[in-house]
Amino acid sequence: MSSNYLNFRNSVPWVILLLEALFLICSYFLFLKLDGVDSLIWSQHSSYPEFQDVNHMLIFGFGFFLMVLRRYGFSSTGFNLLIIVLGVQCCVLIEDLLVFFHLEANEGILKSIAKALISMTAVAISTGAVLGKTNLVQLIVMTLVELIVFYVSRWINRRYLEVGDHLSLMHVHLFGAYFGLAVTSCFPEPSPRLDKNRSTPKSDLFSMLGSVFLWVFWPSFNSLLAQSRRKAVVNTYFALAVSAVTAFMLSALTSKDGKFRMTHIHSAALAGGVTVSFTAEMISHPWIAMILGLLASAITILGSHCLQRCLNPPLKIHDTSGVHFTFGLPAVLGALAQVVLLVIREWTNSSSLGYLVLLHIGAFCQTISLALITGFITGFILNTRLLKIIPVSKYFEDQFYWEVSLSVKL
Amino acid sequence: MSSNYLNFRNSVPWVILLLEALFLICSYFLFLKLDGVDSLIWSQHSSYPEFQDVNHMLIFGFGFFLMVLRRYGFSSTGFNLLIIVLGVQCCVLIEDLLVFFHLEANEGILKSIAKALISMTAVAISTGAVLGKTNLVQLIVMTLVELIVFYVSRWINRRYLEVGDHLSLMHVHLFGAYFGLAVTSCFPEPSPRLDKNRSTPKSDLFSMLGSVFLWVFWPSFNSLLAQSRRKAVVNTYFALAVSAVTAFMLSALTSKDGKFRMTHIHSAALAGGVTVSFTAEMISHPWIAMILGLLASAITILGSHCLQRCLNPPLKIHDTSGVHFTFGLPAVLGALAQVVLLVIREWTNSSSLGYLVLLHIGAFCQTISLALITGFITGFILNTRLLKIIPVSKYFEDQFYWEVSLSVKL
Amino acid sequence: MSSNYLNFRNSVPWVILLLEALFLICSYFLFLKLDGVDSLIWSQHSSYPEFQDVNHMLIFGFGFFLMVLRRYGFSSTGFNLLIIVLGVQCCVLIEDLLVFFHLEANEGILKSIAKALISMTAVAISTGAVLGKTNLVQLIVMTLVELIVFYVSRWINRRYLEVGDHLSLMHVHLFGAYFGLAVTSCFPEPSPRLDKNRSTPKSDLFSMLGSVFLWVFWPSFNSLLAQSRRKAVVNTYFALAVSAVTAFMLSALTSKDGKFRMTHIHSAALAGGVTVSFTAEMISHPWIAMILGLLASAITILGSHCLQRCLNPPLKIHDTSGVHFTFGLPAVLGALAQVVLLVIREWTNSSSLGYLVLLHIGAFCQTISLALITGFITGFILNTRLLKIIPVSKYFEDQFYWEVSLSVKL
Repeated sequence: MSSNYLNFRNSVPWVILLLEALFLICSYFLFLKLDGVDSLIWSQHSSYPEFQDVNHMLIFGFGFFLMVLRRYGFSSTGFNLLIIVLGVQCCVLIEDLLVFFHLEANEGILKSIAKALISMTAVAISTGAVLGKTNLVQLIVMTLVELIVFYVSRWINRRYLEVGDHLSLMHVHLFGAYFGLAVTSCFPEPSPRLDKNRSTPKSDLFSMLGSVFLWVFWPSFNSLLAQSRRKAVVNTYFALAVSAVTAFMLSALTSKDGKFRMTHIHSAALAGGVTVSFTAEMISHPWIAMILGLLASAITILGSHCLQRCLNPPLKIHDTSGVHFTFGLPAVLGALAQVVLLVIREWTNSSSLGYLVLLHIGAFCQTISLALITGFITGFILNTRLLKIIPVSKYFEDQFYWEVSLSVKL
Repeated sequence: MSSNYLNFRNSVPWVILLLEALFLICSYFLFLKLDGVDSLIWSQHSSYPEFQDVNHMLIFGFGFFLMVLRRYGFSSTGFNLLIIVLGVQCCVLIEDLLVFFHLEANEGILKSIAKALISMTAVAISTGAVLGKTNLVQLIVMTLVELIVFYVSRWINRRYLEVGDHLSLMHVHLFGAYFGLAVTSCFPEPSPRLDKNRSTPKSDLFSMLGSVFLWVFWPSFNSLLAQSRRKAVVNTYFALAVSAVTAFMLSALTSKDGKFRMTHIHSAALAGGVTVSFTAEMISHPWIAMILGLLASAITILGSHCLQRCLNPPLKIHDTSGVHFTFGLPAVLGALAQVVLLVIREWTNSSSLGYLVLLHIGAFCQTISLALITGFITGFILNTRLLKIIPVSKYFEDQFYWEVSLSVKL
Repeated sequence: MSSNYLNFRNSVPWVILLLEALFLICSYFLFLKLDGVDSLIWSQHSSYPEFQDVNHMLIFGFGFFLMVLRRYGFSSTGFNLLIIVLGVQCCVLIEDLLVFFHLEANEGILKSIAKALISMTAVAISTGAVLGKTNLVQLIVMTLVELIVFYVSRWINRRYLEVGDHLSLMHVHLFGAYFGLAVTSCFPEPSPRLDKNRSTPKSDLFSMLGSVFLWVFWPSFNSLLAQSRRKAVVNTYFALAVSAVTAFMLSALTSKDGKFRMTHIHSAALAGGVTVSFTAEMISHPWIAMILGLLASAITILGSHCLQRCLNPPLKIHDTSGVHFTFGLPAVLGALAQVVLLVIREWTNSSSLGYLVLLHIGAFCQTISLALITGFITGFILNTRLLKIIPVSKYFEDQFYWEVSLSVKL
């Protein structure tokens, strides 16, 4: 390890300290007092237990979901915790800043944290794409840039494209996946002969643990800020159920000897939840959600084969935990489904139909293009000498960041 | 591996596809619209968080609880997820069908899913008995047959034996355990020298993880559809607490050198929850629940010794994760306790007592005999050449179904 | 293994039986009937889901949090379960006894269990200090003594020092940590060359799992019995968030080569929650909670270095899972913060200020001194020949208590 890098690593805590000091100072000047009606129910139906579900999902679920690499267990859970708590503080401050300048109404701090947690999902997804290839400072810079850009993207959507507050948050999967992909495309590829970026049965089991957590809590995620919470819960549940079934079916169909592949199950079982996130409160017949779940799972598994064989090698994209097909493609499908459902529903009312469709497509294009452009820029910045990229040979190694008593063999 | 079997395995995805297509078509014609009062509270006290607990318990809890075999971790959690989501869809459709033909009142889709999840516990328990010995098609056939028979059994109980809706669902442990036992008795026994059907310390830890989840969420399970939810929660909690204590006591008493055995703790700690499931809302003094918990744990541990030494070898029953003593015997005890408590309570009112006792005994006998008879028939069907049973040498092997990067040594 | 010890071990189940029989008899005479308003909401805002969070936190969270030793996984989770269910029964009986003699108002059994669970946290923390060094009988004796003394301490605080019911329960971390330390100081130290009391990457991952559970559920813990639940939740959340950030910062600053140490993250991420437990409902600006979180994390990590190098070796204290710096020091900081905040708030009202400060300091001193004194006495009793201490060479060994199929190498 070059002494150059050691010097750099010694600066990691100072970056964190600087950031936390900034948050503290801002919060001193900005934070609204915790007064008013003291209740853990912040809207008609939403309350603390559902908030807790989403909190659990992000900290525990994503932390263990990302534990796919054999020697990267500590970093997967540990850095996930750090990134999320930093990001949530940052989000709540931005929200407070907007309230302070009267740009937004004050909706209570618990709802702010809930929104912050949902926004942080974008970062958790992007982290999956660059997993094991970034050092901690790069990860923190990425988090902050991504959060701010996601805020800008949501603001454009809400201001100019008439997207509701809840729906603008549901673009989080789309944004996170494509931002992460754009960032990871700027990083040098690991050697294909390297075995550290494969999983072991044991790391797969831990990842299954996180995956099942995400699966169970996804209905809470999609319904947390929805108006028609029951509809959102039921539709998400059915979409997830059909996704899981389809995942097994297609995994056996597409693999050698008809065996199942664990990574297919991990990613495709969740695809339904991602796809219906835009439409969960609109759909009034569960069979539509079920078909969306089926298509989402199909696009994920077929996508995983196509992307890993045809698209990623020529473009030199290395997507560690496959966020493109796990979150990106299902989110694109979801946005498409939203437009199709709108057209069907508003068919009779042809006067405003064209305008509404345009707005939806506009919001989709704006989100994805902003994610890609700012992702490339971020990736470029992260790879400057200032932030000292990790040598490729040190990718996917816990021992590079953690004191490990023995060799970490998950 | 014979090419014969390979051909068969290639048909697995088509079976799943067929089934899912059937569900989709039915749900298109049947599913009621998601309208009406939009609330996540479906009865006086039951609401979404408790529903979520039971969902978590089935998907996560049972998935990891069943991870006792050293080389069967992927299949335990993965197949559990698949079976449960298939079963829940099937149950909800049956429920919708009954509402459609005006045989039942419409109680809202969230309550339907809740009932479906409770019914699926029967299948999760039966799966424990045949764990590692069935291929996936056999498992799916078993799931569907068991669900339909359980519906019939509940219908008989409710229609002819005056059992309430909630109580008829609580027969789920009794039904699941004896159905599973009857099915497994038709499968060829694995060689006693085989070490793949033993646990390792690591698989025991994962199983403990699932077991603790089940333990924590059991009060939610017993109270989800109860009328007196608080009573059900408190009685279940105390029964579970005493069970766990008794499990440690008897495990040390019955094993060599006074050491504890992990499988005793896994199964006996839950026995109290199973036993009080029938009576949790009737009992008005917690000490009765505590005594039931003690007896349940005792019957489980003593049963595990008697059954494994005396009953199973001559009958050639191989009960992989011991569902007979974990769920079967405590459920029998619970049914007995229900009758005894009824007799004590209604002692003064001797006119109707005999009739009520007869009804309870009738419901018990009907459930257990239907479970055993249909279980044998199902086991017989599963072992026909059509469904291609697995060779005994391939029992308890993840590698038979999953692409495993290295050998799975939990 | 001496036959002497074997004889002793054979008495373990009888001790448990005796205790459980006592509980059953008492509960027969004492337990109030489960009648009255049948609701799972026991106060203005508290209800079953939050109760479930705390239950989950104690049984699952602490069980896996304590799984830091490489060969002690079964005992960590198993004994934690046993101790907690025994303790909860004991607490509820004490509570019922007080209601029976009209010393306390009857607040409903669910609230009793909730209080019992919070009190049991003291025992779970103390267990962390003596982890792997006590046999099961010693652990049970410690549990009962500690619970009763904690009751006495709370009673003194409430009766003579005007501490509210909720706040008196929040002394649980302070009491648990110093009681545990006093007990462990009476045990012979393990050899420093022993490697069984170190962690492996795999045991660290399981411990991280428990740790994340505790982190997520901590806001529920601090707010369960609070009056201003929303304030308590929000302040705890921010304190925990800043703690986690500070943990990473200081872990890198204080360790060799700027690497992170997993045990730092485990303990310091929770420190914020412990510190604000006294003041969570008082603080009306979250930045105060954030600063407390920062200080708590700092005191934990700096404390862990100072204590392990300077204080523990001369005093011959071996604190297995570091409860002194994980729970003890942050709780002291929290008590200090409580006084400082009181002084600031009541500055204008100087007449009663001195008296209030004295009361707070009195409650703190009373709790900590009672914990230390009774802890030493308990430690002394536990080390008498009657309770047959384990030979130092058998410390930290699952195989001493459990039938383990292979050697337990986590």
